[in-house]
Amino acid sequence: MTNAELAIHFFFQLAVILIVCRLVGSAARWLGQPRVVGEMIAGVLMGPSLLGLLAPELQLWLFPQELSPILYALSQLGLVCYMFLVGLEFDVGLVRRHIGGAAAVSLAGIIVPFTLGGILSLTLRGDERFFTAGVSGWEAALFMGSAMAITAFPMLARIIYERGLAGSALGTLALAAGSCDDAIAWCLLAVVLASFGDNAGIALMAIGGGIVYALVVLGVGRRLLRHLGQRAGHTGQVSPSAFALVMILLLLASWYTDLVGIYAVFGAFILGIAMPRGAFAHDLRHTLEPVTTNVLLPLFFVYSGLHTQIGLVDTPGLWLLTAVVILVACLGKGVACWLAARLSGFEQRESVAIGALMNARGLMELILLNIGLSQGVIAPPLFTIMVLMAVATTLIAAPVFEFAYGRHAPARPAAGPVGRAGQELQSSAIEGDAGAGGPGAEPSWPG
Amino acid sequence: MTNAELAIHFFFQLAVILIVCRLVGSAARWLGQPRVVGEMIAGVLMGPSLLGLLAPELQLWLFPQELSPILYALSQLGLVCYMFLVGLEFDVGLVRRHIGGAAAVSLAGIIVPFTLGGILSLTLRGDERFFTAGVSGWEAALFMGSAMAITAFPMLARIIYERGLAGSALGTLALAAGSCDDAIAWCLLAVVLASFGDNAGIALMAIGGGIVYALVVLGVGRRLLRHLGQRAGHTGQVSPSAFALVMILLLLASWYTDLVGIYAVFGAFILGIAMPRGAFAHDLRHTLEPVTTNVLLPLFFVYSGLHTQIGLVDTPGLWLLTAVVILVACLGKGVACWLAARLSGFEQRESVAIGALMNARGLMELILLNIGLSQGVIAPPLFTIMVLMAVATTLIAAPVFEFAYGRHAPARPAAGPVGRAGQELQSSAIEGDAGAGGPGAEPSWPG
Repeated sequence: MTNAELAIHFFFQLAVILIVCRLVGSAARWLGQPRVVGEMIAGVLMGPSLLGLLAPELQLWLFPQELSPILYALSQLGLVCYMFLVGLEFDVGLVRRHIGGAAAVSLAGIIVPFTLGGILSLTLRGDERFFTAGVSGWEAALFMGSAMAITAFPMLARIIYERGLAGSALGTLALAAGSCDDAIAWCLLAVVLASFGDNAGIALMAIGGGIVYALVVLGVGRRLLRHLGQRAGHTGQVSPSAFALVMILLLLASWYTDLVGIYAVFGAFILGIAMPRGAFAHDLRHTLEPVTTNVLLPLFFVYSGLHTQIGLVDTPGLWLLTAVVILVACLGKGVACWLAARLSGFEQRESVAIGALMNARGLMELILLNIGLSQGVIAPPLFTIMVLMAVATTLIAAPVFEFAYGRHAPARPAAGPVGRAGQELQSSAIEGDAGAGGPGAEPSWPG
Repeated sequence: MTNAELAIHFFFQLAVILIVCRLVGSAARWLGQPRVVGEMIAGVLMGPSLLGLLAPELQLWLFPQELSPILYALSQLGLVCYMFLVGLEFDVGLVRRHIGGAAAVSLAGIIVPFTLGGILSLTLRGDERFFTAGVSGWEAALFMGSAMAITAFPMLARIIYERGLAGSALGTLALAAGSCDDAIAWCLLAVVLASFGDNAGIALMAIGGGIVYALVVLGVGRRLLRHLGQRAGHTGQVSPSAFALVMILLLLASWYTDLVGIYAVFGAFILGIAMPRGAFAHDLRHTLEPVTTNVLLPLFFVYSGLHTQIGLVDTPGLWLLTAVVILVACLGKGVACWLAARLSGFEQRESVAIGALMNARGLMELILLNIGLSQGVIAPPLFTIMVLMAVATTLIAAPVFEFAYGRHAPARPAAGPVGRAGQELQSSAIEGDAGAGGPGAEPSWPG
């Protein structure tokens, strides 16, 4: 195919992807689920697990190998924009103020799933359906631990805001613990990937390069970027030059972190944290989010779905393993956070709600799994099992939260969410709604 | 290269493109030129005309062949989004109300350049440096005529608004004549491309398919789309589902028009015209424009620049031809519109200002030229000559306008630009500024 033929076929492919993601996402919302659940499933449906089974030729025509570089590059662009937005949402001040109260939940939400995931990985290693041959025991343990410890932070934040809980004890605890856990899990993943080169020098460069990057961006970078925020305060709008600058920094950050051997999403996430807050972050999110969540991210769901082959889970033993993985995930993250919240003095219904929220893995888990697959850490069957776990834990969150807490919570945001957290979240629609957000946007979480 | 390597190299390439376009664009503004002039030149600089001469290996490393499908697909996505925004700006009501007064300028701005371009093409055809062997006489004439008749409408509109002329006689005349001429030129181009297939059936399908498309979209489509506008009026924001729907329609429109044999930008332009106006158009533009103009369009400038080889214009004869082409372009469009405005009763300085505005070709010309090159109508040397003409006519516009009219015009928008035209244009920053626009944005036109 010529470039022109490729481009026009890509337009058609993208249109089909957007239609299917939109339809299945809307169906999910109709069933009382967040849209992201539907989009995760839509991606799987368009892959070999359904479309490839029913109409293999159509699937091959729709997703030809030649288009794969374009699909991949755009989905990666979507991912780094998305992780940048997640970092932009990360509220350092909120974590600092509330981490005391949230420490128990946050620690439980890291240590327990991480330990359980690590133990599980030991029983799986050595089987090439799960981990590739070159993976050492502790690399497998670190990866599986990180994968178990991930939280769908953007979805959690969206739910907290939509239920008007941003200023409540439950809300600040969940926000602080969730964002803290996510940051730790991404750092752990960075270590896994950094250590994955056989050569100690490569690993050192990756870890050293990653630390230097984080220190420079969060230190000098944050101070330099403050100017952007001050100028934004006066105009009330992200200027074209500021937007272009942010995009250039984002691309360079992603390129650099990938170059030293840490994944690009880590670089994008850290850059998002370093951005000035307030009006600038709000305007920047409104500028970048609609295209990211509505156009680019669906490509990632599909790219991920193309690698999810439910047909590989073809024995009772593998289905049993899937059940065990889901159980371990729920015990390690959901139940551990529930108990930790209970021990911290929260009521039973609030504790269960916190556990359900922390337990959802969402899109964040898919990002991590795709990195593991592309870096050759895990093999396609385990990838598929973990995708099923991600979908299952995300599916469970809504009904459990609703059952435990829904009837007691206000359906609309309380009059004044406390502090900046509320203001920040007010505009956020990422993951939960996958949309342009704001008070006028569609709620992803049915009241 | 693997997909992952391609994607990360693409990130770096995109960062470099954005940096160079931003820098040269800012330099242009510093010199009193619109940003688009700088970006057009930036694209040429990164191609074989400069970077390829100075550092051929660096150029090859930065723009490897393997990345060309990704670069092309994204630049095409940028183009259809851009042409959609141009269509969104097209004010049917304004043209209808003012076409009486603008008819002379509009007709002069089509007929004279079209005729002169056609005559010029006859002297050039038969030489394979200009037109490819398979092109018939009247195809060459139609293409050259359309290329001469193009106006940089978005830049014109931006200047009119920024000088507070949207409600003035000069402003409405220029807006009506410019948008009318552009629509006609794109339709002519559609005919050229449609007829380019040797087979009469192919040409019929293209012309028939194009007419059916335009009738359906502007008839039934416009009526169906009206709902979007009514719903938007209540929330004040483009909802995620409306945005996704617009993107899906835009992709399908581009795909369909390409499939029947008319170029995708035509489909996107017509769809933009069919969109509901008012708050919806305003919000939609704010959602789509920043990414389109700041991230995607620079890719097109570079893609176009990669095909511009000033080294091909290597004889005194070819440089003479370049001068003749520029002269014909200015006589055909600029001088003809000036005289037509003068005959319509405008003052001398206003008439010259109108001629200068109508004469600028801008990005719109690059779009048309790249279509001609990729469809095999024109050959690289003529492409390069025409790019030089596009840059020259765009460069001339600012000083001539400023000299003739600048000192007399208000530097800021008048208190109340009349009617919807003013409201619409207020938010438009495409081409002129290549930015997010609005009152807070950087002016592309120095006061």
